Amino acid sequence: MRFSPLIEQLMEAFRVLPGVGPKTAQRMALHLLEREREGGKRLAASIAQAIDEVGYCQRCRTLTEAPLCALCESPRRDDTLLCVVESPADQLAIEEAGGFSGRYFVLHGHLSPIDGIGPETIGLDLLEQRVAQGEVAEVVLATNPTVEGEATAHYIASQLGDYGVRFSRLAYGVPMGELEYVDGGTLSRAFNGRLPFSSD
Amino acid sequence: MRFSPLIEQLMEAFRVLPGVGPKTAQRMALHLLEREREGGKRLAASIAQAIDEVGYCQRCRTLTEAPLCALCESPRRDDTLLCVVESPADQLAIEEAGGFSGRYFVLHGHLSPIDGIGPETIGLDLLEQRVAQGEVAEVVLATNPTVEGEATAHYIASQLGDYGVRFSRLAYGVPMGELEYVDGGTLSRAFNGRLPFSSD
Repeated sequence: MRFSPLIEQLMEAFRVLPGVGPKTAQRMALHLLEREREGGKRLAASIAQAIDEVGYCQRCRTLTEAPLCALCESPRRDDTLLCVVESPADQLAIEEAGGFSGRYFVLHGHLSPIDGIGPETIGLDLLEQRVAQGEVAEVVLATNPTVEGEATAHYIASQLGDYGVRFSRLAYGVPMGELEYVDGGTLSRAFNGRLPFSSD
Repeated sequence: MRFSPLIEQLMEAFRVLPGVGPKTAQRMALHLLEREREGGKRLAASIAQAIDEVGYCQRCRTLTEAPLCALCESPRRDDTLLCVVESPADQLAIEEAGGFSGRYFVLHGHLSPIDGIGPETIGLDLLEQRVAQGEVAEVVLATNPTVEGEATAHYIASQLGDYGVRFSRLAYGVPMGELEYVDGGTLSRAFNGRLPFSSD
């Protein structure tokens, strides 16, 4: 037995969402049709409207339906600090951690020549224009601590090397918590990067 | 920091899906906007179309956009057997298990006077019409083995008691697998309902 064509089509469509397999897609489709038709209509309208209207901030490239995002519009941020992140989710994580008062630039990915993702795709021309304006004193390269994130950070630092800005990278090391659960790569990297310590 | 209003609205809208909390909703919204705009458009259109067009089979009340569902239309099912289930998902589970060749009737829930769900809400008038036509010889009451499912099965059997049909209920007992993982309620019920056994 299969469900009717429109229900099967809906189940298939739900598979586009991250982490949604056939069972979850079935549960979502039946849930909407059996119990949440009003909520389902709102969901359909929200998806369509967001996809239609949400674009990229002209200044930092984060997702927003306005020409400039709220953070770029804010007068209370430090224009001399610019944090480069791979995604809006990374940006949110840094904001929620608190302590950073500068501006952001969102790449929406990392360099990946093999997938055809070059400097322009991740907005490096716009980033260069921004730095060339002269207000930025330090660029915090907060790309992911992965091979691709590292390569992207190195590329950006070399590309912008002539503008006299400082570059920094997030500190690597063991996360807070119990050592026992830290993966080997992180642990050996933290070991190699060990810092002087005194009891003062 | 919050995301822009349309993105926040989209995250809120995703919460209507079963099992989707704030973190998952954020991941889904950003995923669609960052990487799956085409798939997102198809999803929005599928949800809207399904909610608009999918109704209930006139004969068995399962979800379908046609007047009659494929299973009710099929000439290869036994009209004398009628299996009553709470949901299309239960119906699918029974079909996938195989072995049942009769027809179905879908309640879309169970009796729950406290929530205002009475006999008509779960289609018992339509079920009675079906049985009154005289073709059905046995009604398999496959409502859930819960207090509400039991009560609904009892209600149906007493309501249809005058039509001379047999009633049956799915066998209860331990599921296949290891006893160790079976919950106490199921185990004590299986114990009380133990059956004679011989080595023949």
